[in-house]
Amino acid sequence: MTIGLLDTDFCGPSIPRILGLENRKVHACPEGWMPIYADGPMQRLRVMSIGFLVDQPDAAVVWRGPRKSSMIETMLNSVCWGQLDCLVIDTPPGTSDEHLTVLNQIQQLPEDKVAGAVIVSTPQRVSLCDVRREIGFCSKTGLKILGLVENMSGYRCSNCSHCCNLFSSGGAEFLAKEKQLPFLGRLPLDSTLTALCDSADRFDLKSHTTEDTMKILQELFRHCPTLASACP
Amino acid sequence: MTIGLLDTDFCGPSIPRILGLENRKVHACPEGWMPIYADGPMQRLRVMSIGFLVDQPDAAVVWRGPRKSSMIETMLNSVCWGQLDCLVIDTPPGTSDEHLTVLNQIQQLPEDKVAGAVIVSTPQRVSLCDVRREIGFCSKTGLKILGLVENMSGYRCSNCSHCCNLFSSGGAEFLAKEKQLPFLGRLPLDSTLTALCDSADRFDLKSHTTEDTMKILQELFRHCPTLASACP
Repeated sequence: MTIGLLDTDFCGPSIPRILGLENRKVHACPEGWMPIYADGPMQRLRVMSIGFLVDQPDAAVVWRGPRKSSMIETMLNSVCWGQLDCLVIDTPPGTSDEHLTVLNQIQQLPEDKVAGAVIVSTPQRVSLCDVRREIGFCSKTGLKILGLVENMSGYRCSNCSHCCNLFSSGGAEFLAKEKQLPFLGRLPLDSTLTALCDSADRFDLKSHTTEDTMKILQELFRHCPTLASACP
Repeated sequence: MTIGLLDTDFCGPSIPRILGLENRKVHACPEGWMPIYADGPMQRLRVMSIGFLVDQPDAAVVWRGPRKSSMIETMLNSVCWGQLDCLVIDTPPGTSDEHLTVLNQIQQLPEDKVAGAVIVSTPQRVSLCDVRREIGFCSKTGLKILGLVENMSGYRCSNCSHCCNLFSSGGAEFLAKEKQLPFLGRLPLDSTLTALCDSADRFDLKSHTTEDTMKILQELFRHCPTLASACP
């Protein structure tokens, strides 16, 4: 399976660091930009992020809305993804320029090409209020919601195994029930995973050490047949 | 001391929930909007948030950049704050429309009226990359940085007191040293505080139960004479 990953978070493009691709430069070919291959010669995880296009990490680039929209349109239309089974578009939180521009672009595709949106929230009420607005945005614009994921859902102490719901718990599942949406599962706070995300290692070296989280993710996919069928 | 608090986060206006002011409506007077008093008749914490102006919590209001800028200008110029000792403007993460609009507006004030920016980060490298850009933004635009705060800095297990640096540790202090900026202190992950932020209680009822965090905040202020003198 070959996946494209497009990071549209201009103010916090975290994908390059998480996948160990910092300081990689995007090259142009006659047809557009070449994505970065996160898995080296396998070329099955192809990534594009605004983080690759900004030269200096400390550069004070102010991304006003219209400039964001224009850059997202360019990224959606000018990346030479090649043959993909699935394109995942990672958006920042909220309902703003990024979301409307992505939606305008994907609505031009045939309906059966657009699987839908996966909405991620922490269990906190303050986050769930934002997610309510995101659900409203999807309903209003006719974008199918594949389901909700609860992230940062509890932390099991590495010393005594006591579980603390640092950011409350169950809020996303409750909201999914209220809105009659599929609940896809909970991802706990995992200090191994956060450390891996921060490390400068290559993505394929990182993934071997997160078997516990992989199990949770596989379970999450099992609960989401629509997503699984969209990503065969 | 009388403080005004302006929440400019359009996609996640969390201040109303955190201060127990959800469902409160802003009223207009001939001079503009009346802020909401978070402490009731004392009237020493006056709040304005886009959250007060949106009728339905699930409403899919899409805030494109120019509309955000226009609303921030209106909020900065049309709220009847009354006599304030200090106006705190809470911005979302990043360097986008909100930040540039706020900056354009406050740069029209006399220089001695603008204390500067307090930058908050988690200790993670993925967050610190964003904060580097925010520091670059302040340097480029001539906005003084009062200092850096490290939030979500470690969690002490409520069962065994073991401390886990869930999101790494020390990153913000390291960055402050590198950039020769004051480091104001660390705020740990505190499940009591996150639960309080989520509760629908009134602000003055919430504050009595967070003595530990109050101590940390007082220490933080002690390390920041510029901020303390700006907020006498």
